[in-house]
Amino acid sequence: MIGIFDSGVGGMTVARAIEQLCPDMPLVYFGDIARTPYGSKSPDTIIRYSQFNTDFLLAQGAELIVVACNSASSTAADALRASYSVPILDVITPATSRAAELSVTGRIGIIGTRATVKSGIYPQRIRAARPEAKVFSQACPLLVPLVEEGWLSRRETKMILRRYLHPLRLKKIDTLVLGCTHYPLLKDLIGPRIGNQVQLIDSSVEMALYVRSYLDDNPELKKRLRTKGETSRFYVSDCTEAVEQMAAKIFGRSVVLHPIEA
Amino acid sequence: MIGIFDSGVGGMTVARAIEQLCPDMPLVYFGDIARTPYGSKSPDTIIRYSQFNTDFLLAQGAELIVVACNSASSTAADALRASYSVPILDVITPATSRAAELSVTGRIGIIGTRATVKSGIYPQRIRAARPEAKVFSQACPLLVPLVEEGWLSRRETKMILRRYLHPLRLKKIDTLVLGCTHYPLLKDLIGPRIGNQVQLIDSSVEMALYVRSYLDDNPELKKRLRTKGETSRFYVSDCTEAVEQMAAKIFGRSVVLHPIEA
Repeated sequence: MIGIFDSGVGGMTVARAIEQLCPDMPLVYFGDIARTPYGSKSPDTIIRYSQFNTDFLLAQGAELIVVACNSASSTAADALRASYSVPILDVITPATSRAAELSVTGRIGIIGTRATVKSGIYPQRIRAARPEAKVFSQACPLLVPLVEEGWLSRRETKMILRRYLHPLRLKKIDTLVLGCTHYPLLKDLIGPRIGNQVQLIDSSVEMALYVRSYLDDNPELKKRLRTKGETSRFYVSDCTEAVEQMAAKIFGRSVVLHPIEA
Repeated sequence: MIGIFDSGVGGMTVARAIEQLCPDMPLVYFGDIARTPYGSKSPDTIIRYSQFNTDFLLAQGAELIVVACNSASSTAADALRASYSVPILDVITPATSRAAELSVTGRIGIIGTRATVKSGIYPQRIRAARPEAKVFSQACPLLVPLVEEGWLSRRETKMILRRYLHPLRLKKIDTLVLGCTHYPLLKDLIGPRIGNQVQLIDSSVEMALYVRSYLDDNPELKKRLRTKGETSRFYVSDCTEAVEQMAAKIFGRSVVLHPIEA
């Protein structure tokens, strides 16, 4: 199975994108709702929780781990690679490669949680792919709670977005990476506020494309993942009505969420 | 020692108020920063974490437990009382007694997290003290992230507050309980938006007054707590710069925060 974990429900946008591109691959998803958000926690704590999540997914039969959480990808993916033998795919690599490739002017913006921005990993990866790129980052810590409240088109959300995006607008970027799995839900508000000519890179979609091409490059693994004949399962460390509603919204259908302790 | 726990830093407003009213009582504080916020979690998870926190404080020598977190007080205090023999004081009782006592018209408003409001405990307690009272509740889930971002006087914070307080304003309340330990930090913005004639009940201050009178009623315990000769200690399950800054802001001095795993 393809194992996917996230600090909460946001990673379901990644699970959904993978499901659409790889419909014959069963997924096992774990959302650490009880301990969400990771974005404001210290690296040590994020690493510790990410190890817990990986152990859980491996015990469920995962043979490939997708770290759908940007905060965990930026602070814990290398630590996971050092401790586990299964492939660990982080959500940052696909989005940064695409941004480096698509930007015309090389002026690229990143928005993410405080932890993601502080890690500096997006600029680092983009510059590794395109050394002359100018990368500008902006932490947007209030967007996750706004999305989780369902305030997807409220005036306050628009004002807060305008405040966050203003400094990037001044930098005249031509490409903006949505460096958090919650942000695709705000895409329609972000476009006009950053400028409609700016290309938005959705890390969920890029991740799914990357998983598909990774499996094409690893046919043995692909075959094993496909022939197991299991169906997708979704686990969460806490389950509330708001979580169920968000899951249904992302998948466009109701999803059974199995609770586990974390 | 007086043991105090909260889901995060907000409970430090309670610790600070107790410190000021009972300066000769050493405190042991635990803030479960790694797993904050509790307000959006399920009752089972909140109870499980509250038991962990209580065990930790007892192991540190606490002989009295103050549940400084409104979400934990509303969903876990009774479960704690059933499992432990030390006195468990919740942050709701003092504020609801005061509101019932001070309101002239009996029209009382409550603001809190989603979990606190959903528990229905504030209206229940107020009506127990004053059966004819009309109690109106409003969940304000974005206020905690706004306070934690330090957006204490931003235009967006004012707009969001206006939106949250508007329904209570229409109810013509004369008393408003700030049912979350973060909210006292927004008192200056809340006053003019709910109407300056409305009395604000600060649950942190009421809690400290209650602890003092509880100890006056229990002189043996008071003597034991006082004569132990220890100094106050502060523990957190995660520590970031933002947490240190908030602690310093609340206490008006820098506070040493000892990290523990949770």
